[in-house]
Parts: sequence; structure tokens; C-alpha cells
Amino acid sequence: MTDITMFTSTLSLTALYSPIVAELRAVEERLLGELYSDLPLINELCAHVQGYGGKMLRPSLLLLAAQACGGIRDAHLTLATVLELIHLATLVHDDVLDQAEIRRNKPTIARMTSNETAVLVGDYLISHAYHLCSSLDKPAVARQVAACTNRVCEGELLQVHTRGQWSLSPELYLEIIRRKTAALTAAATELAATLSDCPVEWCRALHVYGEQVGIAFQIMDDLLDLTGNTVVVGKSLGSDRRLGKCTLPVIHFRRDADPPAWEAIQAWLTGANEQMACDIESAWQAALQETRQTARNHITQAQLALQTLPPTPAREQLQMWADFSIHRQR
Amino acid sequence: MTDITMFTSTLSLTALYSPIVAELRAVEERLLGELYSDLPLINELCAHVQGYGGKMLRPSLLLLAAQACGGIRDAHLTLATVLELIHLATLVHDDVLDQAEIRRNKPTIARMTSNETAVLVGDYLISHAYHLCSSLDKPAVARQVAACTNRVCEGELLQVHTRGQWSLSPELYLEIIRRKTAALTAAATELAATLSDCPVEWCRALHVYGEQVGIAFQIMDDLLDLTGNTVVVGKSLGSDRRLGKCTLPVIHFRRDADPPAWEAIQAWLTGANEQMACDIESAWQAALQETRQTARNHITQAQLALQTLPPTPAREQLQMWADFSIHRQR
Repeated sequence: MTDITMFTSTLSLTALYSPIVAELRAVEERLLGELYSDLPLINELCAHVQGYGGKMLRPSLLLLAAQACGGIRDAHLTLATVLELIHLATLVHDDVLDQAEIRRNKPTIARMTSNETAVLVGDYLISHAYHLCSSLDKPAVARQVAACTNRVCEGELLQVHTRGQWSLSPELYLEIIRRKTAALTAAATELAATLSDCPVEWCRALHVYGEQVGIAFQIMDDLLDLTGNTVVVGKSLGSDRRLGKCTLPVIHFRRDADPPAWEAIQAWLTGANEQMACDIESAWQAALQETRQTARNHITQAQLALQTLPPTPAREQLQMWADFSIHRQR
Repeated sequence: MTDITMFTSTLSLTALYSPIVAELRAVEERLLGELYSDLPLINELCAHVQGYGGKMLRPSLLLLAAQACGGIRDAHLTLATVLELIHLATLVHDDVLDQAEIRRNKPTIARMTSNETAVLVGDYLISHAYHLCSSLDKPAVARQVAACTNRVCEGELLQVHTRGQWSLSPELYLEIIRRKTAALTAAATELAATLSDCPVEWCRALHVYGEQVGIAFQIMDDLLDLTGNTVVVGKSLGSDRRLGKCTLPVIHFRRDADPPAWEAIQAWLTGANEQMACDIESAWQAALQETRQTARNHITQAQLALQTLPPTPAREQLQMWADFSIHRQR
């Protein structure tokens, strides 16, 4: 069972997840059950991947949205499991792409076995996600899930394609994270409403909510990659710099930088200089602050969208989830 | 449009495909349409991958099976496109696993761009396969397709896991190719019958047919990897030896080999000796012959299963397809 009391923050995940603890356990059990194979080798690999889970971001958003839409049904548990399987698959393939060695304080599958095995384990997870998804009696939902994974792949491809472009535009950065991260969180909250046969305005509002939370979450993730501590965050950091991924702090810094400052930050980003030059430190801090503010703006939009739904304790939890996503330390 | 007149054999693909030429074209068009993205980068990558297609093995088996079951419906074209997309995805990921440089006489995606891009393009193809599959109005078929891809991944994982095991048992070899290759050909022919609402005996018979053809096809593929000519076959060969993949000729050779002969063949397999020692050449040729005979036995089983279906020109084509799969030179 995954420990979901992992975060230290003024808003803890324990508090956020308190109304859905039993359901999150049920999702974890379904996930275990789905991945079971008659081949011991595969069970060993999957047991390792299950250790990657932890935040249960997508399932928790889906389940809280379901509560806000009147209550959690069996189909919600199924779909929450599907989305977590998809997320795990992207983590496993991401670790191949990013050449990451550590994930949740454990060696990655790619590191522990080989890139080949990691590619196949990711494929195995995604295949099981679709297998479970096709058990839903709403084919339109399965189709929306697959449309969402189309977008996730597009976002990832765009990201790999733009590696090394330190002058990435803010629009393209947003488009990348909208597809690669926010498509899945938007599907989580929107489809919770769809499965509850909610009015279309609720579905739309929850789509906006999930998308904006996803965008803010990714902005903060990218910020932590530049500023966080590996032990606290529990995964390899600094990979964005190493791989030439241009993220929002760099984009904000660039807009106001004169040529020498831009040269100095690039020297640090590319590793030509280990330490950041002192004279750009305060401008860099300002860029980080502006990045946090951008994330906050997306959260404001998310919370505004929620107003379409009737006031319930579950809606309150979703408001808090949005806040949490920008205050987390890991 | 893919050239489907590519094979030279007493049985040509042109003859085999003659009753389904228009439908195969329709499948190629659907495939093109499905992969279209608003991102030019992705269209470029997909255009390259489409060049991998060619044999259209799975679509042609499905369409001929559909004809044998009373006629080709729109759902058959959809499912044929889905299976070809899945197949293309496995090719792209296989080329990462096998470090292959050439596929259909062109550089592989992995070689042309990067392993990272190849992983993502494979994911993109599989996602589109499921997206299209979920448009079928029979969710049970979508579920069977995903169950089949679960098995494909298991087969691939088993294969990677057993690399370097030159003493692989014939049972485990068969299990690997049954999952990694035959699961998809079995799904192609069985689901053709399912979509035509055929009696369950027909579905079962076509499952056996597709599975046995798939097994024979893979046995011959593995044989060609050891004996074929890169230019004729049109892809990187010898990768099984280089990667330590033990295939049927080696398994047959080993059964009758004394220790010095076994040592000599291993020296050749591992590349310690460039040339095979002269004194094992005839035993090696015998093992190749036995391998061809094993493939023929599977084809006999496939053709026997077909007897459950009423005699039609389409059934005759399926009989010929089975023969072709073991007589092909590439």
C-alpha cells in the first residue's frame, strides 16, 4: 500500500485525501489486480513500478470531482485506475527519455534493468490501461481517454523536439505542458462528471479546473527541477538543464535579460559554469518568483471554474487541492 | 501508397491480395487520416513510419477472413487499421530494442532521430490505435484487442529477459513467439469472424488459423535473420545473434550436438568466430531444414482449422496465405 502521508506542507495530502482514503485504497488494489500476470518476471517488474506511485494526483482529482458531482460510482474507481496506469506508463517511458536514475528514492526501472525493459514495461502498463478502460460500458469515455493520450504523446514529442532551444516562446512552453500533463488531469475531472451523467456545463467547468491545475502542477514541477533538493523531492533533479529543456523560469528570465545576463544564465544552464554568476542571481530569483505567480494565476482560473458546481465539501477539497499544487515542496 | 507487389515467390502477395486490393487501400487511407496531427513535426515522423508498412500481413489476414465469413463490413476496415497501427508501433519500439538501423531499406526512426523520439512515436501510434478501436460499437472487441496487446508485451518482455540464453527450451521459444507475434494474427482472424457475428466455432477455428500462421511466420522471420540477405529482406539482419536471441535453428542444432559442436556454434553465434566451423556446417543445414519443417507443421494445423469454414474463394486465399508465409524470401 502506498504511503499517502508523504507531503509536508501547510496543506497536507493526508487532509486533502481524507474523504477518499478508502476509494484510493480500492484503486490501488484494482491496479495491483490488473497488472497480475502468469509470468513471475512481469510481476516482479510491476511490483517495482508500483513503488513509483505516491501522489495519486489523477485518481484523487477524479474521485474528489466525482464526489462533487454527487458521489463515487464503481466506474469512477475503474477510470481512476486507468488514469493511474497511464500515468505510471508515462513515468516509466519518461525515465528512459530523461535518462533518470532515481524515482521516489529508488532506482528507476530503466536503471535497474535496461532501457529496453523500461520501454516494454511502459507498453505493458499502457496496454493494461486500455484493457481496463474498455471494460467501461461507456465507449465514448474510452474514446476520450485515448484522445487524451494522443495529446500526451504529442506534448512529449514536442518537448523532445524543442530540446536545446533556450529561447522557447512562452506560448510553445504552455502548449507542451498543456498536452503532456494537463490533458490527463483535465480528462480526470471532466470524465468524472461524464460518468456521473452531469450537465454539460459541469463537465466543461471540471475540464477547465483539471487543465489549469495540471498546468500549474507542471510549472511547479519544472521549477522544483531547477531549485529543489533531490532527497526531499525523491527523484533525479536537474535533468531539464542537462537535457536542454527550457522551462518557465528561463523564459521569464530571458524576457528582461540584457545580452551579458542571457549569456551568463546560458553558461549555467548548459553546465559550462557550475555556479550561477553572482550578478544575475537577483534577476534569477525574480524569474522564479514570477514563475510561482504564473502558477498561482492558473490556480485562480481553476478555482473560478469550480464556482459552476454547487458548494459541497468535495468542491472545497478541490479548491484546496488547487492550492496545494503550488505550495508543495516535492 | 505502399507497394504491395514487393515479394517474389511462387506465391506472390499480388495474387494473394487480389480480392482485397481496394480494401487494403482503404485501410492505408484510414491509417493516414488517423495519424494526422495539427503539429507538422508529428506528420513528418508519421510519414516516415508509414514507409515501414508493406506486407500488410494483419490487415490482409483480417480482410480475407472477413470475406470467408460472408463479406467485408466497415468495422473490418476499422479493425484492420487498428491492428496495422499496433503492428507499426511494435516495429518502432522493436527497432529501439534491437538497435536496428534499417527497416524496409530506409533508416529506422530510432536511427534517423533518437531512441527517445522512437519511444514516443511508438506510443503515439499505439494511442491512436486504441483511439480508433474505441470507435467500434462493440466494446468487447476493443477489450479483446487490448487483451491481445497485453500478451504481445508479455512476449516481448520474456524475449528481452531470456537474451543470451542459448540453451532456451523449445517450449519457452514457442511461448515467446505465440505471445509476441501470434496473438495479433490470431486476433486479426478471430475478430473478423466476431465482427461478422459468426458462430463461435468459426471464431475458434479462425483463432487457431491466425495463431498457427503467426507462429510459422515468426519462425521463418527468425530463420531469415540468420540466413537472409539484408538487401533482399530489406532490414537489418543478424540482430538475433548480436543480441543473444536464441531461435529455433539453434534449439534444433543443440538437441543433437555433442559438446565440441555446441561450443563451435556458440563461437559463431556470439561472434567470437566470424565464420562457422566447417565441420558443423552440415548439422547446421539440417537444423535449418528441421526449422522449415516445424514451420510447415504449424501451417498444416492452420489449414486444417480452416476446414471448419465453408469452402469459398476467400478460404482458398487463406490457405494460400498460409503457404506463402513459409515460402517467402523476405
